[in-house]
Amino acid sequence: MREAKLRELLGAVASGNVPVGDAVEQLKALPFEDLGFAKVDHHRELRRGFPETVLCEGKTPDQVVDIVSTIRAHGNNVLATRCRPDVADAVRRAHPDANYHEVARSVTITVNPPVQLEGFVAVVCAGTSDIPVAEEAAVACGSIGCEVRRVYDVGVAGLHRLLEQRRVLDEANALVVCAGMEGALASVVGGLVGKPVIAVPTSIGYGASFGGLAALLSMLNSCATGVAVVNIDNGYGGGMLAGMINRIANGK
Amino acid sequence: MREAKLRELLGAVASGNVPVGDAVEQLKALPFEDLGFAKVDHHRELRRGFPETVLCEGKTPDQVVDIVSTIRAHGNNVLATRCRPDVADAVRRAHPDANYHEVARSVTITVNPPVQLEGFVAVVCAGTSDIPVAEEAAVACGSIGCEVRRVYDVGVAGLHRLLEQRRVLDEANALVVCAGMEGALASVVGGLVGKPVIAVPTSIGYGASFGGLAALLSMLNSCATGVAVVNIDNGYGGGMLAGMINRIANGK
Amino acid sequence: MREAKLRELLGAVASGNVPVGDAVEQLKALPFEDLGFAKVDHHRELRRGFPETVLCEGKTPDQVVDIVSTIRAHGNNVLATRCRPDVADAVRRAHPDANYHEVARSVTITVNPPVQLEGFVAVVCAGTSDIPVAEEAAVACGSIGCEVRRVYDVGVAGLHRLLEQRRVLDEANALVVCAGMEGALASVVGGLVGKPVIAVPTSIGYGASFGGLAALLSMLNSCATGVAVVNIDNGYGGGMLAGMINRIANGK
Amino acid sequence: MREAKLRELLGAVASGNVPVGDAVEQLKALPFEDLGFAKVDHHRELRRGFPETVLCEGKTPDQVVDIVSTIRAHGNNVLATRCRPDVADAVRRAHPDANYHEVARSVTITVNPPVQLEGFVAVVCAGTSDIPVAEEAAVACGSIGCEVRRVYDVGVAGLHRLLEQRRVLDEANALVVCAGMEGALASVVGGLVGKPVIAVPTSIGYGASFGGLAALLSMLNSCATGVAVVNIDNGYGGGMLAGMINRIANGK
Amino acid sequence: MREAKLRELLGAVASGNVPVGDAVEQLKALPFEDLGFAKVDHHRELRRGFPETVLCEGKTPDQVVDIVSTIRAHGNNVLATRCRPDVADAVRRAHPDANYHEVARSVTITVNPPVQLEGFVAVVCAGTSDIPVAEEAAVACGSIGCEVRRVYDVGVAGLHRLLEQRRVLDEANALVVCAGMEGALASVVGGLVGKPVIAVPTSIGYGASFGGLAALLSMLNSCATGVAVVNIDNGYGGGMLAGMINRIANGK
Amino acid sequence: MREAKLRELLGAVASGNVPVGDAVEQLKALPFEDLGFAKVDHHRELRRGFPETVLCEGKTPDQVVDIVSTIRAHGNNVLATRCRPDVADAVRRAHPDANYHEVARSVTITVNPPVQLEGFVAVVCAGTSDIPVAEEAAVACGSIGCEVRRVYDVGVAGLHRLLEQRRVLDEANALVVCAGMEGALASVVGGLVGKPVIAVPTSIGYGASFGGLAALLSMLNSCATGVAVVNIDNGYGGGMLAGMINRIANGK
Amino acid sequence: MREAKLRELLGAVASGNVPVGDAVEQLKALPFEDLGFAKVDHHRELRRGFPETVLCEGKTPDQVVDIVSTIRAHGNNVLATRCRPDVADAVRRAHPDANYHEVARSVTITVNPPVQLEGFVAVVCAGTSDIPVAEEAAVACGSIGCEVRRVYDVGVAGLHRLLEQRRVLDEANALVVCAGMEGALASVVGGLVGKPVIAVPTSIGYGASFGGLAALLSMLNSCATGVAVVNIDNGYGGGMLAGMINRIANGK
Amino acid sequence: MREAKLRELLGAVASGNVPVGDAVEQLKALPFEDLGFAKVDHHRELRRGFPETVLCEGKTPDQVVDIVSTIRAHGNNVLATRCRPDVADAVRRAHPDANYHEVARSVTITVNPPVQLEGFVAVVCAGTSDIPVAEEAAVACGSIGCEVRRVYDVGVAGLHRLLEQRRVLDEANALVVCAGMEGALASVVGGLVGKPVIAVPTSIGYGASFGGLAALLSMLNSCATGVAVVNIDNGYGGGMLAGMINRIANGK
Repeated sequence: MREAKLRELLGAVASGNVPVGDAVEQLKALPFEDLGFAKVDHHRELRRGFPETVLCEGKTPDQVVDIVSTIRAHGNNVLATRCRPDVADAVRRAHPDANYHEVARSVTITVNPPVQLEGFVAVVCAGTSDIPVAEEAAVACGSIGCEVRRVYDVGVAGLHRLLEQRRVLDEANALVVCAGMEGALASVVGGLVGKPVIAVPTSIGYGASFGGLAALLSMLNSCATGVAVVNIDNGYGGGMLAGMINRIANGK
Repeated sequence: MREAKLRELLGAVASGNVPVGDAVEQLKALPFEDLGFAKVDHHRELRRGFPETVLCEGKTPDQVVDIVSTIRAHGNNVLATRCRPDVADAVRRAHPDANYHEVARSVTITVNPPVQLEGFVAVVCAGTSDIPVAEEAAVACGSIGCEVRRVYDVGVAGLHRLLEQRRVLDEANALVVCAGMEGALASVVGGLVGKPVIAVPTSIGYGASFGGLAALLSMLNSCATGVAVVNIDNGYGGGMLAGMINRIANGK
Repeated sequence: MREAKLRELLGAVASGNVPVGDAVEQLKALPFEDLGFAKVDHHRELRRGFPETVLCEGKTPDQVVDIVSTIRAHGNNVLATRCRPDVADAVRRAHPDANYHEVARSVTITVNPPVQLEGFVAVVCAGTSDIPVAEEAAVACGSIGCEVRRVYDVGVAGLHRLLEQRRVLDEANALVVCAGMEGALASVVGGLVGKPVIAVPTSIGYGASFGGLAALLSMLNSCATGVAVVNIDNGYGGGMLAGMINRIANGK
Repeated sequence: MREAKLRELLGAVASGNVPVGDAVEQLKALPFEDLGFAKVDHHRELRRGFPETVLCEGKTPDQVVDIVSTIRAHGNNVLATRCRPDVADAVRRAHPDANYHEVARSVTITVNPPVQLEGFVAVVCAGTSDIPVAEEAAVACGSIGCEVRRVYDVGVAGLHRLLEQRRVLDEANALVVCAGMEGALASVVGGLVGKPVIAVPTSIGYGASFGGLAALLSMLNSCATGVAVVNIDNGYGGGMLAGMINRIANGK
Repeated sequence: MREAKLRELLGAVASGNVPVGDAVEQLKALPFEDLGFAKVDHHRELRRGFPETVLCEGKTPDQVVDIVSTIRAHGNNVLATRCRPDVADAVRRAHPDANYHEVARSVTITVNPPVQLEGFVAVVCAGTSDIPVAEEAAVACGSIGCEVRRVYDVGVAGLHRLLEQRRVLDEANALVVCAGMEGALASVVGGLVGKPVIAVPTSIGYGASFGGLAALLSMLNSCATGVAVVNIDNGYGGGMLAGMINRIANGK
Repeated sequence: MREAKLRELLGAVASGNVPVGDAVEQLKALPFEDLGFAKVDHHRELRRGFPETVLCEGKTPDQVVDIVSTIRAHGNNVLATRCRPDVADAVRRAHPDANYHEVARSVTITVNPPVQLEGFVAVVCAGTSDIPVAEEAAVACGSIGCEVRRVYDVGVAGLHRLLEQRRVLDEANALVVCAGMEGALASVVGGLVGKPVIAVPTSIGYGASFGGLAALLSMLNSCATGVAVVNIDNGYGGGMLAGMINRIANGK
Repeated sequence: MREAKLRELLGAVASGNVPVGDAVEQLKALPFEDLGFAKVDHHRELRRGFPETVLCEGKTPDQVVDIVSTIRAHGNNVLATRCRPDVADAVRRAHPDANYHEVARSVTITVNPPVQLEGFVAVVCAGTSDIPVAEEAAVACGSIGCEVRRVYDVGVAGLHRLLEQRRVLDEANALVVCAGMEGALASVVGGLVGKPVIAVPTSIGYGASFGGLAALLSMLNSCATGVAVVNIDNGYGGGMLAGMINRIANGK
Repeated sequence: MREAKLRELLGAVASGNVPVGDAVEQLKALPFEDLGFAKVDHHRELRRGFPETVLCEGKTPDQVVDIVSTIRAHGNNVLATRCRPDVADAVRRAHPDANYHEVARSVTITVNPPVQLEGFVAVVCAGTSDIPVAEEAAVACGSIGCEVRRVYDVGVAGLHRLLEQRRVLDEANALVVCAGMEGALASVVGGLVGKPVIAVPTSIGYGASFGGLAALLSMLNSCATGVAVVNIDNGYGGGMLAGMINRIANGK
């Protein structure tokens, strides 16, 4: 549409119906946004294969269904996170091919399957209670074509369980480490491997964990090089970033 | 320059040297910023008469002098805030017409005197220790052509001193209220007047004032309507916003 | 009663029964509050056309209805905020002409329609989850006669959506910017426009948003000039202040 | 038992069976606690007329009833605070003469009516939502024989309402000031009167009130002399302390 | 001036030139502040014998000397707190009869010696490092005519030292308890006595004392009845409040 | 598998097919984890007699039952903490010999009764509301063979109750002290005894207790020597550590 | 004096001048504190061999020397912590046999050498910057007769360095673990050993370590059993507690 | 030594003196750490070309020189961060080829020049005061062979300056974004590009920036996908992680 308008103006210039000076003025007066589509296209280009993501928390089932339907109508894949079962049900009623990942509290709809990438992302978590966050990371990561290897329940209080999994840690292109309580796992993993570690503090814990603050601060102060942190319980963010790094490892 | 380039392209379209389709592609590929000048101009227009501001804190005297000289070279007024005496001295050596407002810790250089506005801004403070912040507000406000009336040392522990100044409070177009400790003055003034109150918490206090946090929270929770808050000790921000409101009262 | 007492004293002065000197002493000794009613009138004068506002949170439906009825009985407009549906229902049963703005969780009763003002206030929000706060601002603003233009869902992660709306941002007399999560929108808008920006942090977010603290701190530290902040989720406060500025732009 | 042991030792001294030197050594070796009961009596003496207080929060109805019954069995007055209606009902079933102060969420049982004191305590609060805390203070204060005068809904945003009540503020022996949000009322009252002000921050507010923290910090940083602070929502503590001061004014 | 204006109006009433009704209207319309002096007198009355206090922190020696001189010129006693030695020297140069309490960091000038009161205030502190705050309390208290008994270095880690001083604790009319670190002393003293305890948290400690926050929170959460808290290191505030209570015990 | 591989290598050495030097290199290159199982055995050795512990919070009844069954299948004792009644019921349905300690919210299954130790641990708590945490400590402690003596409801506001129990405090090998509100009990007990005190802050309190933060900070800043602190409400951690010390006193 | 009084009373009982019943009453009425010395003796007994400790921070050199001299005059060992070089110099001038442990910032004077205990305490630290705190722990521990084995610079980012020291960790009777930044070392060590771990967070770090808060919270939330925490940088407290446990292991 | 022991065992296997089964058992029982050196080698392999890093803060010049010399003696490159000029001087005296990056406060010694990588990392900062942190990132990044492109002084208050640099942002393999105050730049950049953004909050700001906390929270709550955060002022950490991603893009 916008392009059509632009083409029409240039056509008028070409045919001599609009003098150059007038066209310059019209182009300058064009609202900024009229050239904005370049950006949109470019963006789409850059992120090809990424799903559009809906944060369901704080939205009604109807709102989520509307947004999901719009995304799909544009031919994009959908990833909906923090999705309660009733919201997931509503989405599945409207989109029977939607896939609900219950533990991850995520819904995916795959319109265009992403290209499967070489290598893998390791998703690591400290305790069984951290698994929902880890799964959210795994689903996000998988949605952009990454293989995910899960290394769960390897908290630092039983270091041998972690060390037994060293090979998978070493071979990953990127790692997501989810831990609550004192969050020490991120530093320990960061000290073992030479690849980027995306640390996801979880809100698992009580008392002086202050809803994940203890793990968050712990991870931010990691003595290991190569560790960066996302928001508390933000498995999605950790998974996507690790996935982006894995894509880069695939030359994308 | 940019316009020249645009004009050249359109000329080529007009002359038939560049087909419309190619021109569309070239225009779409034009980097964003090439149309950015509209914004720059527009901005300059909007803010005409505003000084460019330099936050001196964390900069060396040399850095400040360089920045100030550059601003001036563009023909703009200068306002430098949080300016220690040695920095001010350096500026004045380079710019002998610079004016150092010692209590306000601010330097001004007026290349183009701002139009003097009708009405006034009241700058109010609770205790004598809050005066440096209040003065920073007053200097900022004055730098864009506002008359400032000072109502100082009117803390709520001696309410009569404040009430004696009610007329000036009532007649101001906007008020800046600077207070440390419990910051109650903002709510009391906000309850007395019908004009916008920009509250500036100060770091004056000790112990559980936590560097101004107590005053900040107090002001954010004001039970009076029409009170908004800027950062702790940000007299500049408070003064500029009150001045902007006074400009609006002058139809600008 | 108080007036009667005053009248009696003055009568005694007039009749010569009380010498002037004695009357001066008596008047000086009169407790403060005996002349307090003057203040009430004055206040009403100042704020003419403003609704009286009821914060419903923490009040029972009966309490809200009582307060609303009292206000109305004095001939004033009513604005009730943070109003749950059951409270709104109770108000509407008692006052069938009450208007419930569901998304804004606000009830208005207009006894004396406010004068419609020139110009407008822009209410901007980052995400769809911020809309309830933005709507509270919009309703408050509208209640004092301001036109409101809504610019919703323009978070900084998709800058082009915001830039497409630049014209409405530029032309507003004042802006209310509501954002949760990192609250960056306030700084970005503040950098684009030359008018006062009232930033309203929202509690939208999770984890390290700490109930809106992240957005609050972000907005308080805005690097843009002309931004002031109200309490988390305080759409009402932001809307009223922006409305007051718009009134000032109308010479009031 | 302990006394028996002591009596036995002294009997042995009296009878010459234990030399004085040995008895001194034995007494010195007696564990501390064996003379502890003296303290209990002494304490009871000091506090005669005070009710024993039960904090109901976190206790089951059965637990509260048990504790209340024990206190009463010792002939003491009872004051139970933070008492939900179901707990109050359970107490009243067991003690039909118990008095439930619903707004104050407090139950009193008066076995020995306290002596009524001269003078009075003023209980002041900022908004109607602060009344439950203020009433808790009033009930506590009344339970030790104090007359209470209530000055409610006099927040600083409408200063005239407060000033109209200056006489009662001036004449009180002690004042309890309950306020949430920015808590400015404590400073303003503290600046008006020359008597002790016990400030009670309340959790009324939202957002950056952080559950009463804003009011708490504000009150702790009060610029007025003679203001001390108790815990957030601790009407009981504020009322008892003001009552103790009123008792002192009565020479007790 | 104001009185002259009032006298003129009443003269006009007396002479029949202004009818009573008109005078009532004029008086009602008189701005609030025109009767403000009444308040000042009243205040002075209430607080007779209290020194005027200067918080020296954040003021230059010259500023302090100026303020002190003004107070004295009005015939009032002076109490200057948080006074560094150089500031004290400056005051003593100007006022050779000024008394510098070095440990208390306070200066007093006694123009009108206060009436000495019956009874006493106990000032208690936990460790030797808390003594400066305790002394500030003692000096403040003494400045209004109270006898002070010092009970120092009685921290709860050596409970016997405290218990040995029980008599003086029991007999005080009010107590000031200064403690840093965990601040437990306030609760222990509060549990031992039946008189008001004004708790002053000090900033003594390190690490997780967070500048006195630990002691402050501890004292605010005291399980003993009759404890209220002032700001961290605010010996002055604690001493004045305890002194006010002691005055009340003297029927003032 | 790993052992097989190792055996194969050693077989090759034995048969002379692999020279010693090569085998050393291969063993050095063996990933760490291949010998990890040694550690497991070693660990089991060290902790013989300790139950394996399940933190039930955040797990479904089914998950808890599965974990409990696995532990038991390995022949270990079970301690499940923070166990809601419905979870406890599920465990008992699967394991009828499970013992539910309701107040402690803990389930124990004793497969191998621990050796009963000499001496005892004192579990002390301030108020009746702290008992659930104290009981969690007591159950944990008992699960490793410790005798526990309970000293409950001895808060510092009634010091005589605590002092009456001095003998049991003095004779314990280790003490667990549970307290909410201001947490002063830990310091007072720490000052009375010469044995390790494990302080457990509880979340009992309201307002500025901030969910146990006040007690936590208080305990961390204890002025008594020999006090260490575990997480808020972590009775389990406190009990286990005190029990470990008691084991050490038994020469284990 | 007190003893004299007691002896006089018992003499009167012995001589028949005071009946037993009267003596019982008199003894019961004796103020608590008159038997306080028992406690002092008892305490001394309990802690025999412990040094008396002086926290030098916040004291002048003269004050420290005075306190040290008094302790020594009572024949006790001295341990002075947080001792700046100038304070140490002053102590050594007065007490030439004082021993200054420079890295530990501690001074010891040994009047009665403590009995050397069996077994040892391991003092572990994460980085070289944590050594001063670790040394403070080691000196404190040594002052009560414990052998200390140092395991320094074994942060979790290089896990192999820690694992190489497993034997010494395993064989210690108690461990002190000092770590700043994210403090993960405490959890990792706690998971490796079966003995009590006293975790000492240090203030080493920057930014979001918030002066040791990150390490403190991390350690409080440790997922390992048997870990308790002392204040930030409180090497002394950690060392003494570990030493007390080692004493218990020696049957004391 | 360890290797000798291993060699001896294998020799015994080879000679038939130790049966394979026994050797397996002995190897399994070998303490963990005896094979620890394998890990060291492996690690070195993984990180080949990375410098060893010294955090100078909190170390004396002598300590830093010692550590640097040791690293170099092992043939490794050195990167020393947070290096004051006097420390840098000491290093350069000992190692004349050391390179001091003054703004970055970093010293590098390059023994083995790293392989130069394809592509580049963009280091972006908001204001001139953020440059030291940005430079620390750039130096770290460069030390592992990455080309760095600097995009400085592009804060969101002047969005056009950022947008003009879009091409370099778009083409980077990874981005480091350093910003203080409100830290909004990370979200804006994250919204513009499709590559990983490592956000580094800086401590630039005052008042409610709370030493970088505002920027930290803002960045953690970023609404843009692909943003992770390191510690406040941790340019080193941000640069290394971005560099690692760039290495991955080069297939390493």
